Amino acid sequence: TSTPGGTMQQQAMGPASSAPAMHDFGGTTYFYTAGSQHARHSPLPAALLPGGHLFHLPHTALMKPKANQPSFFMQDELRLDTLRRQYLLAAQIDPVQHPDIPSEVDNYHTLYPLEPVPRDPKHRSSTFGFITSCYKGISAKDAMAYCLTRIHGFHMVNSKCMLFTDMWKKIQHSNIVQLREVFTTKAFGEHSLVFVHDYHPGAETLMAHHFNNPQQNKDFFEGTAASKGMVNGPRQHAGLLPESLIWCYVVQLSSALRTIHAAGLACRVMDPTKILITGKSRLRVNCVGIFDVLTFDVNQSNPMALIPQFQQEDLLSLGKVVLALACNSVAGIQREFLQKAMELVTLNYSSDLKNLILYLLTNQGRPKSVNDIMPMIGARFYTQLDAAHMRCDVIESELAKEVENGRLFRLLCKLGIINDRPGLGLDSDWSETGDRYLLKLFRDYLFHQVTESGEPWIDMAHVVQCLNKLDTGVPEKLCLVSRDEQSVLVLNYHDLKRCFEQAFQEVLTASQPGEQPPTSLHQ
Amino acid sequence: TSTPGGTMQQQAMGPASSAPAMHDFGGTTYFYTAGSQHARHSPLPAALLPGGHLFHLPHTALMKPKANQPSFFMQDELRLDTLRRQYLLAAQIDPVQHPDIPSEVDNYHTLYPLEPVPRDPKHRSSTFGFITSCYKGISAKDAMAYCLTRIHGFHMVNSKCMLFTDMWKKIQHSNIVQLREVFTTKAFGEHSLVFVHDYHPGAETLMAHHFNNPQQNKDFFEGTAASKGMVNGPRQHAGLLPESLIWCYVVQLSSALRTIHAAGLACRVMDPTKILITGKSRLRVNCVGIFDVLTFDVNQSNPMALIPQFQQEDLLSLGKVVLALACNSVAGIQREFLQKAMELVTLNYSSDLKNLILYLLTNQGRPKSVNDIMPMIGARFYTQLDAAHMRCDVIESELAKEVENGRLFRLLCKLGIINDRPGLGLDSDWSETGDRYLLKLFRDYLFHQVTESGEPWIDMAHVVQCLNKLDTGVPEKLCLVSRDEQSVLVLNYHDLKRCFEQAFQEVLTASQPGEQPPTSLHQ
Repeated sequence: TSTPGGTMQQQAMGPASSAPAMHDFGGTTYFYTAGSQHARHSPLPAALLPGGHLFHLPHTALMKPKANQPSFFMQDELRLDTLRRQYLLAAQIDPVQHPDIPSEVDNYHTLYPLEPVPRDPKHRSSTFGFITSCYKGISAKDAMAYCLTRIHGFHMVNSKCMLFTDMWKKIQHSNIVQLREVFTTKAFGEHSLVFVHDYHPGAETLMAHHFNNPQQNKDFFEGTAASKGMVNGPRQHAGLLPESLIWCYVVQLSSALRTIHAAGLACRVMDPTKILITGKSRLRVNCVGIFDVLTFDVNQSNPMALIPQFQQEDLLSLGKVVLALACNSVAGIQREFLQKAMELVTLNYSSDLKNLILYLLTNQGRPKSVNDIMPMIGARFYTQLDAAHMRCDVIESELAKEVENGRLFRLLCKLGIINDRPGLGLDSDWSETGDRYLLKLFRDYLFHQVTESGEPWIDMAHVVQCLNKLDTGVPEKLCLVSRDEQSVLVLNYHDLKRCFEQAFQEVLTASQPGEQPPTSLHQ
Repeated sequence: TSTPGGTMQQQAMGPASSAPAMHDFGGTTYFYTAGSQHARHSPLPAALLPGGHLFHLPHTALMKPKANQPSFFMQDELRLDTLRRQYLLAAQIDPVQHPDIPSEVDNYHTLYPLEPVPRDPKHRSSTFGFITSCYKGISAKDAMAYCLTRIHGFHMVNSKCMLFTDMWKKIQHSNIVQLREVFTTKAFGEHSLVFVHDYHPGAETLMAHHFNNPQQNKDFFEGTAASKGMVNGPRQHAGLLPESLIWCYVVQLSSALRTIHAAGLACRVMDPTKILITGKSRLRVNCVGIFDVLTFDVNQSNPMALIPQFQQEDLLSLGKVVLALACNSVAGIQREFLQKAMELVTLNYSSDLKNLILYLLTNQGRPKSVNDIMPMIGARFYTQLDAAHMRCDVIESELAKEVENGRLFRLLCKLGIINDRPGLGLDSDWSETGDRYLLKLFRDYLFHQVTESGEPWIDMAHVVQCLNKLDTGVPEKLCLVSRDEQSVLVLNYHDLKRCFEQAFQEVLTASQPGEQPPTSLHQ
């Protein structure tokens, strides 16, 4: 049964919804204090928007990395990573220097090679057995960047294999690079087959990220890593990867396999060279669907007949990837070193991890299933979810900061459009007279104030604070001084905001005689 | 093979420079054409930065909501939600109208009430049994907003209970509202105890979000929901919550309990009125640690003695929350309606959900553990992780769009500081002469262009594009026209950037004679 106290408590964290009196007036939303008439029964006080340079950091600023969780980007790093990815999305080649790259391939233009041109042009992909190359391309249909994987000199003899690609196209999963389409083309001067996947700028392969250091194999063979692990205790100090990171990968890769197998498909590219990593620990299986087309056998009456076998191979491949990560060396997955590798795992990692690898690598006498490994992951699912939620929180608080910047930028653009405008229509003195004169003095107030001894006073906080007050139209007063210092005008931000909006509206109206003004600045 | 048309096509999106190589020179990064000397051996082509207003949508634009996953915000909604939360973070009361709210409480200022003032000031919280009130407060130490829960008239007799709060303060989890500190104060005119938790703007209680509609209880008692479920099949149509959402909650609440129990504590507030929801489906247990202080028994030799019992009660409470969600009515958790409620669950939900509720609500003959419910959650962990990753991707792509705003805003501030400055030092004509004259004309070029018939030409894309070119210092040329249209100055952005930086540096230097210039604009 509910008590009034209970009701109160229930509303405890639901602030402000009924609080500020909002009123839409001529397209502008005003917040006002309704005064005494609702003081008696209004449950919450009216809200004032702060006039000051208020910047409340979100609580993500207090977050501490957890020992058992993969690290995630903190603010500055996240921003740099974002800029880097924007740069890669936009990167172009100089077409004059690359006459071999066609200007258009099917619906894609602005091709940009994503891997080095092989020294030997006959070099074949060790995975697919064909000569391949890889480009970023912009779709003419939706202006998005995609990754085009070209299989050189491939003649498609039968379109029945599109059965597979149609199934792949439907698989949307956060740990799989989605296949979008497959087409044949002669744009490269010969028959090519092109697979179009999503483009993830800045992604590295797991191979490049973890297994590119020759010292690792040396450590493995000399047992340095293992013995270090024995002596020093914490395996993170032993030249090995932290177990939490390996589980983070296991959860993601098994998640991808589970979705693929549940769809009746097989991955067939569970390999460090085909797993992409972005943002420190996010994995995506790349190149899905390619094998199904390249090895399609028209003589096989049931094209799905081999899928169960391939699924078993996926699990074996997953075991090899996990073992390589645990040994921190791809040498560990070679059959002759398997025993040595398992010893290293036993010495340095939990029995859960050892059992997982053994399950995946050894014959179980019955078909293995990705579902069987869930109990081995166990409570680590919780850890991964907690990490993912926290990462969301961090990015979201960054977004909150930047959304504010966009608003401030638009305000300054509007002010720039009004201030010092050399006339409007027939009024050659427009920007120097009437309300616009106040806005000119406000611009000086923002940017051109000097100290008592005449030095420029530059303060970003002052600019942000005043713009926020203008945007909100707070009742706070400000003094604007004419340049000759002969007159002082006192007005409040509320009135200044009215001047500002009216002046901008005048320019807008003048800009589009008889038309609707553009909407991009109407926010 | 490339055609002239092809070359054009590739440049269509990037009119910028033909400047592949980057070189850092005196802190400025220059992009220049390296010529043929690296064309032979460079494995990857040099990248061109596009000069234009280029905007590649990220792949999150193609994401489709999945039937078995809780929905997440898409772009516009996310942005609105962000702005709303910023507003709530910044909301203030008019202190004149609220003389009862002190201006400072301990280290917190700018208090803002988060719940209605009770009609009867003697009303006690049905949960805690004390008169409570709740405020947002800004910390003077870190300028962050916190939620202050005040227990009215509470005399702290013994500080031993701080043992509990010290343990709670260490618990950082994405589904728990973190306790930051506890203090006593007389700032409200009497002895009060104040609990400081993180503030999550815009959060609603699960009670307010799901159980505020009287129709729900009616549906439950009349069996409308259940029978609809039987007849119409899909339970989402039956006035009941989708099972996927209930599991989403189960995973989060059990995650919180698992962390709390593992730390040797008990939650004690697993109740719809103490669970907060933000962003559609993210839950956080609120008010943790309060009970441990309020009910602290100084006569108990071992303060931890009752924890195992409270942990068992947590699991029972979790069962009640899940049952209420499954019935979509809090009536279902009352003992006399339990059988009816379980029938409804059996009819409308999976046996996993029924078994989970039965496990939590019934006596198992041995202590229950939150770990026991993991197998019932099973593969749904994967679903939740996939959803969390996708939500990260969506927010991240929004951030990518917005991350440029701060940079553009700072550029306009710098330009505002230079343009039309009424003199610098002894040079009263500073902003009208030399390099500054070029920057003035550039300002007109940005904001004050008119069409052939003299109408203002307003184009946000033009402003952004020109500012980006200025910031990059591309070799592209632009024509600046004097206001009397008598002279035309042709220069490139590279030189304009030099003028810009030099002019700003002059103001900076003048602003701080003998000191280091401020750093906030140095980015």
